This record gives sequence, structure tokens and C-alpha cells, in this order.
Amino acid sequence: MSHTIWLTGLSGSGKSTIAEIIKKKYGGYVILDGDILRAGLNSDLGFSIEDRSENIRRIIELCRILNENGINVITAFITPLREMRRKVQIKIENCSVISMLISLDECKKRDPKGLYKKAISGEIKDFTGIDSIYENGGPGEYSLYTECPIDVTKLELFDIVERIQKEYE
Amino acid sequence: MSHTIWLTGLSGSGKSTIAEIIKKKYGGYVILDGDILRAGLNSDLGFSIEDRSENIRRIIELCRILNENGINVITAFITPLREMRRKVQIKIENCSVISMLISLDECKKRDPKGLYKKAISGEIKDFTGIDSIYENGGPGEYSLYTECPIDVTKLELFDIVERIQKEYE
Repeated sequence: MSHTIWLTGLSGSGKSTIAEIIKKKYGGYVILDGDILRAGLNSDLGFSIEDRSENIRRIIELCRILNENGINVITAFITPLREMRRKVQIKIENCSVISMLISLDECKKRDPKGLYKKAISGEIKDFTGIDSIYENGGPGEYSLYTECPIDVTKLELFDIVERIQKEYE
Repeated sequence: MSHTIWLTGLSGSGKSTIAEIIKKKYGGYVILDGDILRAGLNSDLGFSIEDRSENIRRIIELCRILNENGINVITAFITPLREMRRKVQIKIENCSVISMLISLDECKKRDPKGLYKKAISGEIKDFTGIDSIYENGGPGEYSLYTECPIDVTKLELFDIVERIQKEYE
């Protein structure tokens, strides 16, 4: 049955990279990520907690439409609050949440888009981990350690994805 | 190449019926219609012209995501203004607009959901054709006569759809 793999974690925690790895290995997934959604469907929304909630609400509905039409989805959104992730699990019928386990320090070090630098200097506001909250792993979430080099992550990752796929067979 | 067939017309003009006929005959289409979208993704929107524009904006973005992921779409939304339909044609790379040709009187007579009755009695507001505008066919739109019995329509319809499919091959 069609399902959604919902990746949650800080900016720079590897969500988009991991979404691409899953798609490449297993095929048959549509990736939804912040860059796509923030530029289009959700371009009217900012980064306040209210706007983040509306952002997630719309993405949930999008996943439902895709899943109902036989399309598997991987999402890569920060989804900072446990309450948001609980809604994800409740509202999307076949959905597994994978939480990226990584320290804020490591994300700051990676800073692939230079966003932490801008957030720390005050150039951008409401940035998760700097001046906006991220609540760690909630109940029923898979945990994926992304602090270590990617090769180790991949083995653990594929194990998780295979368990998810079996669950929704 | 993946494409969108965008059906426009009054409530009761046959958009959803025709979307189902196309999907059944050709397969490989996802249908997006008002009932799905208004209950979920766009449940925060009403029927003022501003909200209708935002409704259409989000659906355009949804079609883009689906098309970019190799999925064909048929939409069934009133899309009352020519300006909205022009945006549809500009923003969705491979998109054809099919305009339902039917008189308001015939739609009122059909009234499949009893909505015209409610709009005329004032029970619902901002209803297209009663107290909200519908602008007739604009440039570059296919026209489909849906006033006549459905069997005649189907021949004309399949001819249009085959022309659309050839265009995006």
C-alpha cells in the first residue's frame, strides 16, 4: 500500500540527502522538500510557529492526495514540534516518521547552505535551533543517527526503510 | 511528457463526470476536484474572489509537483475568471484548458448537489452564476459542449483529449 516516509530533523541533519538515497535505492517515491514547497505551494508562509504549522498541514494533505493515488512519498521538512509530528502520524494513514539524530553543533559545523551563519548573525530570524525550537524524537518515531559518516548511516537506513515497506505491504 | 488537463465551467456543467470518463478511458491520470481539495488542503479557504484565487494558486502548484514527478492530472474546478485560467496556462508547463459550454439555465435544471437551489434561496453565498461571476471561454481554451446528452459529448471529448495527448508526446 502507498505510504509516506516523513523525515524530521534540524537544518543540515541530512534529510534531503537521505531522501535522495532512499529514492535512488528503492525507486517509486516522490520527494517533497522545503525548497520545492516554500518556492511554490507554500510561498505565502513564513517561519513563525503558526506558519510552520500551516506549512505542515498543507504538506500532510498533499501526502494524503499522493498516497490515495498510489504514489509513495518521502518528505524532508524540519517539523520541529512533537505535536506536528503526531498530527502527521494520525492524519496520513500509512506514515512512518524517521527522526534524524544529530547534535546542533554538528549541524552548525556542516551548515551546507550557510543558513546557521546567517541565523547566528541575526540576518535571518526564526531559525530552528538558533531562535526557534526543535523538540527531539517523539513516541513511535524511528531514530536514525546521522552524525556519523554516511556509509554507516546507509546500512542502518536501509534496514529502517525495509521495515517500513514490510509494514505497509 | 506529463501534462495537466484543466476543466473549467459552472457547477453542474459536468467537469467531474468528464474527468472520470477521461480517467476511465485513458488511465494514468490523477483527478483533483473541489470536493477533495476543499475538504483538505484548501479547507481554510472560502468562496470570495480572493480565496478562489488562492485556491487556484495552490492547485496550480500541486499540478506542477505532480507533473514534475511524471504524473498526469485532470482538474475539475470552476476557475471562474479568465485571468485565473491564463495563470493556469502560464504556470503549468504542459497544460490544456477545456471550457465546458453549457447554459446557466441547464446547470440550474441539473443541480446535482442541490447547490443552485440553496444559492437562489440565499442559504449559501458567493455561488458562481448566482451571486459570483463566471467569465466565458478565453483565448487558447478548448471548448466542450456539455449541454447535449453525454454520448455525443464523449466523441467530441475523446477527440480533444487525443489532440492534447499528441501535443505533449
